[in-house]
Amino acid sequence: MGEPQHSLGTLTVVGVGLIGGSLAGALKAAGCVSEVIGYSRSQRNLRQALELGLIDRWTTDLTKAVAGANIVVLAAPVFAVVNIFARLADTIGNDTLVTDVSSVKQPIIKAARTHLGENFTRFVPAHPIAGSEKSGATAARATLFRDHWTIVTPVSETDSDAVTCITGMWRAAGSRIIEMPAADHDRLLAMTSHLPHALAYALVAQLGEQVGSDVSLQLAAGGFYDISRIASSDPVMWRDIFLSNREQVVARLQEYRESLGSLADLIAAGDSDALTEWLERARDLRERIGALRTDNEAP
Amino acid sequence: MGEPQHSLGTLTVVGVGLIGGSLAGALKAAGCVSEVIGYSRSQRNLRQALELGLIDRWTTDLTKAVAGANIVVLAAPVFAVVNIFARLADTIGNDTLVTDVSSVKQPIIKAARTHLGENFTRFVPAHPIAGSEKSGATAARATLFRDHWTIVTPVSETDSDAVTCITGMWRAAGSRIIEMPAADHDRLLAMTSHLPHALAYALVAQLGEQVGSDVSLQLAAGGFYDISRIASSDPVMWRDIFLSNREQVVARLQEYRESLGSLADLIAAGDSDALTEWLERARDLRERIGALRTDNEAP
Repeated sequence: MGEPQHSLGTLTVVGVGLIGGSLAGALKAAGCVSEVIGYSRSQRNLRQALELGLIDRWTTDLTKAVAGANIVVLAAPVFAVVNIFARLADTIGNDTLVTDVSSVKQPIIKAARTHLGENFTRFVPAHPIAGSEKSGATAARATLFRDHWTIVTPVSETDSDAVTCITGMWRAAGSRIIEMPAADHDRLLAMTSHLPHALAYALVAQLGEQVGSDVSLQLAAGGFYDISRIASSDPVMWRDIFLSNREQVVARLQEYRESLGSLADLIAAGDSDALTEWLERARDLRERIGALRTDNEAP
Repeated sequence: MGEPQHSLGTLTVVGVGLIGGSLAGALKAAGCVSEVIGYSRSQRNLRQALELGLIDRWTTDLTKAVAGANIVVLAAPVFAVVNIFARLADTIGNDTLVTDVSSVKQPIIKAARTHLGENFTRFVPAHPIAGSEKSGATAARATLFRDHWTIVTPVSETDSDAVTCITGMWRAAGSRIIEMPAADHDRLLAMTSHLPHALAYALVAQLGEQVGSDVSLQLAAGGFYDISRIASSDPVMWRDIFLSNREQVVARLQEYRESLGSLADLIAAGDSDALTEWLERARDLRERIGALRTDNEAP
């Protein structure tokens, strides 16, 4: 990567799950951290992360976890991150950088601004656009971020050296960087990620109400499998995302409901030409999205 | 497979696309057909099927295509199949079996009953639950049906020897067989296949309205990719499915819209416990569906 050895120093990962664990693994593989400390409420997950070599040591004491850290990465569900800032304010050093990986940025920034005081200038909000329906340290992969975008959403107070350091960290993990305002991020992700997850959960819920037997479920497994894959995602993580981005998520859900209503009308009316045209437009756009994928994103 | 050599005789495939081509390839690989004749309106697709060794010869003359066939497999979009029965009635032999692969069974059976006359007893409605968002002969794979279910929906008039022969054909292609009434099939598939396809098309359509730039689309490519994959499916094929099973599809769409409305209400109300419980139930069912998949269905 061309990074100087251990240039990022000591990294503390709060929440060593899929994202936190993968970032730790990627930075260790790239040789640009001197030590990785894992913090979490679950000892089991921390032990697994240690066994997998994702972290060098762990503690369930937050003060000890962040003592001496050069960078603290908050990789827990949104409300857990929101609640941790007050506890961080008095424990982190005066040079420590703080960043997060949350799928919703505005409430995180608001909590950080409220609680971090002078340290707020060294908080860099970020979101790597990579993941999987799997969760926990055992699902972590050092290559998870390779060729994927990481969105950073600094605010006017954010120190530009801090942004440079955190974007350097994500580049070292293999990621590409794009910067945008937090509000744009939350609106975009509601459409591209939060809405699709809500749809997948709702589809599986409806199947559960209508289809009982294992054979029928097995018949469903083919075409149904891909579209419902993300409904295997962690319920607590997604509860937090839906609730913390609720205005955008509810707006997208209502638009989608209207769009389904129009589709149902086209079908009910038997409007063959309009239906064909509508399906062709969607198919063409889906092909365009497919062509934009990078190799690492391909299945 | 233990099938006697060429036991199925001459097979005519009407529509040598993903399903028709894969079936032809599977039966040739299993050595249980003496000759496969391809019929289609597109010479280009037929030439590709011939080059790929899926068929032995082709014609765009339906009468020639079915002359001397032991089995005629109708593997075209629903309304193309519906419209072909009238032309088949006078051209097929008195021993020829006819079957189809359509995702909607009741309108196919109705058309067959209307037009096939005495030959209707030798029509076996069938639907292999396998596929892909890709279409055409070039997407065909001889292993497509291995360990996948094929649903057969014979009616009271259907000759039992004809059912035995057609189920034997699908078993030779690697498929498992399940029999159910056509109405049950159409209701089940509306839920497990037609609704998910409608949702994927609608999701891509909404993205198209809201997200313009290539970078934003690329940011969408990750989690959005799997859930929208089936929106790459053939628009004509799916127009026919939606319209020919419209009552069921519209009913499932309306139920789904209501379900999304309830979800939006939970989110808007910030009902954290109820939302968590709802997400956990869906996640658990999705895990159960995943565990029911066979090895061949796994990605």
